[in-house]
Amino acid sequence: MAIITILGAGMMGSALALPLHDKGHEVRLVGTPLDEQIIDGLLSTGVHPKLKLAMPTGVRAFPVARLDEALDGVEVVGLGVSSAGVRWAAAELGPRLREGVPILSIAKGLELIGGRLVTLPDLLASLLPASLRAAPVAVAGPCIAGELARRVETCVVFTGRDPEITRRLAGLARGPYYHVFCRDDVAGVEACAALKNAYAMGVGFAAGLHEQRGGVSGSVAMHNHESAVFAQAVREMGRIVALLGGDPLQAMGPAGAGDLHVTCNGGRTGRFGRLLGLGIGLDEAIRRMEGATLECLEILAVLARALPFYEARGEIKRAELPLLWHLMEVAREGRPVAVPFDRFFGEEA
Amino acid sequence: MAIITILGAGMMGSALALPLHDKGHEVRLVGTPLDEQIIDGLLSTGVHPKLKLAMPTGVRAFPVARLDEALDGVEVVGLGVSSAGVRWAAAELGPRLREGVPILSIAKGLELIGGRLVTLPDLLASLLPASLRAAPVAVAGPCIAGELARRVETCVVFTGRDPEITRRLAGLARGPYYHVFCRDDVAGVEACAALKNAYAMGVGFAAGLHEQRGGVSGSVAMHNHESAVFAQAVREMGRIVALLGGDPLQAMGPAGAGDLHVTCNGGRTGRFGRLLGLGIGLDEAIRRMEGATLECLEILAVLARALPFYEARGEIKRAELPLLWHLMEVAREGRPVAVPFDRFFGEEA
Repeated sequence: MAIITILGAGMMGSALALPLHDKGHEVRLVGTPLDEQIIDGLLSTGVHPKLKLAMPTGVRAFPVARLDEALDGVEVVGLGVSSAGVRWAAAELGPRLREGVPILSIAKGLELIGGRLVTLPDLLASLLPASLRAAPVAVAGPCIAGELARRVETCVVFTGRDPEITRRLAGLARGPYYHVFCRDDVAGVEACAALKNAYAMGVGFAAGLHEQRGGVSGSVAMHNHESAVFAQAVREMGRIVALLGGDPLQAMGPAGAGDLHVTCNGGRTGRFGRLLGLGIGLDEAIRRMEGATLECLEILAVLARALPFYEARGEIKRAELPLLWHLMEVAREGRPVAVPFDRFFGEEA
Repeated sequence: MAIITILGAGMMGSALALPLHDKGHEVRLVGTPLDEQIIDGLLSTGVHPKLKLAMPTGVRAFPVARLDEALDGVEVVGLGVSSAGVRWAAAELGPRLREGVPILSIAKGLELIGGRLVTLPDLLASLLPASLRAAPVAVAGPCIAGELARRVETCVVFTGRDPEITRRLAGLARGPYYHVFCRDDVAGVEACAALKNAYAMGVGFAAGLHEQRGGVSGSVAMHNHESAVFAQAVREMGRIVALLGGDPLQAMGPAGAGDLHVTCNGGRTGRFGRLLGLGIGLDEAIRRMEGATLECLEILAVLARALPFYEARGEIKRAELPLLWHLMEVAREGRPVAVPFDRFFGEEA
């Protein structure tokens, strides 16, 4: 059994503690400076204020001020920060970890560097000392944190640049309800993981359009609209995966169709898409999300900046991503939802 | 504009009348012997008793006794019968249609003939006179009939053995809310169309399991379970498509992931899967569906008979379809739901 320290005590970082603890590892959960309230709650009541459940007593909580203590003897690091926290985490962890300690990261996103999209595990590696360059392994796949924390059967994908490290971490984490599959296609898996938020927003449009037209939720609603968008989303995710050098088939796997599916069903991104479908306007839709992090807007912003580079190099045509460009019009320019179905699906499969 | 006669006045055959009528075609809707009540209702009130809406007055309803009259001058036939009605329809239409009249069929299923799975368009062609062998074109993709009949934006796939006929029919049918895409991969499209019912049942398990454990529906439920099954379903559909000589990428298109998605959201198959997940037993689950046609049981029965032939020929291994075999255990043998997640997703994408 291993000593595992998770840095980042938000929903997903904390949920990751459950399967690791249940597997018999010593799990230490360290809040970032943004997680002070969570750690206070855990230390005083044992209940995670965001997950709204009692954490196992074996999972010890630490404020960030005690990071050194929490990292003492650590064999694996779990990184529970969002994309925005990756740079901070690299700076904190880099000097503190001995050579070769693997880092299992839940951050999802893409960054534009030098006219190319870079996955977060690769970005993290580039920010770490040379002795840790092979360390990052990323988690993807359909996993709502609140469900994992309640031990709902969950399938995830681990992906990293070092197949041996990836498989070793999978072996440490895999358990009766946490099913871990390994993929060496970092670009493909991580592109899907980042893109699904943008596309889940688009799948959510139909619910809002339906309500706006006076419809009630039920088996006859606008599911045809919704599912056509879903299928085009999978197709476009595959295209962007290929653009990043990954295997387009990832888009039909757990990190692609699986995570897109769960994000539509369980996530705030789908709710945000519904608000846009309601036609209340972009600013009002954002206001009604009450400060929730909208990863869909973040990834669309990155893509809006990145795609012109790829187009200029002749690597992709705008017509290959009709849904994505419409998502940008709606969620960045405030244009009304009018999904361009006639431009979907090309002429082959 | 064309004279189009639809044979079969159930939900989907009748819904197909809408985009064709709105495009300006003369549409005649003929009931089968099973549709007498529907035709009576249409003739007396103008309201379709199953779709629960008034059909456009331009769509004329005919009982099957007036089939000859309804086929007078017909340029395209729409076939609105289920898989069970294909043989009957071929016998009725074969002698009555002049050479080359195309037949647009909504029937979905696979038949086992000579140790191989045959798609319904190919079966239909084999049952028709030589002059009509190129006639069948099948419709697939995410389309709930009640939504199409209410002119909800819908994307469908037309597929047939004659690319020119397929594209001509697509041109006749395509309209502002009925988006038609052409595929020449009959095996791939039709395998997905048939399989989605079996797999949608499996996606539905999670809702029942969650209720059985006392959970309430919401954003934290068993969506992780559900979406992992969804992703494995797409993967296995692609594998079976390849087994039938189709392009596995169909599984990530509208006929695959798209139709699976809509079937999970809007269909009776998902409700049946939920009942099985509740653990009330196979017989009780069937009883509670009150006589609804359960395509999932039909396709699972065909696959249970067919797969041993493919295995014996060394074309597929049982381990490649762990979800499908579990669906058969549950829905044919009455075994309890226990999804074999650890055998999902193989080791590549």
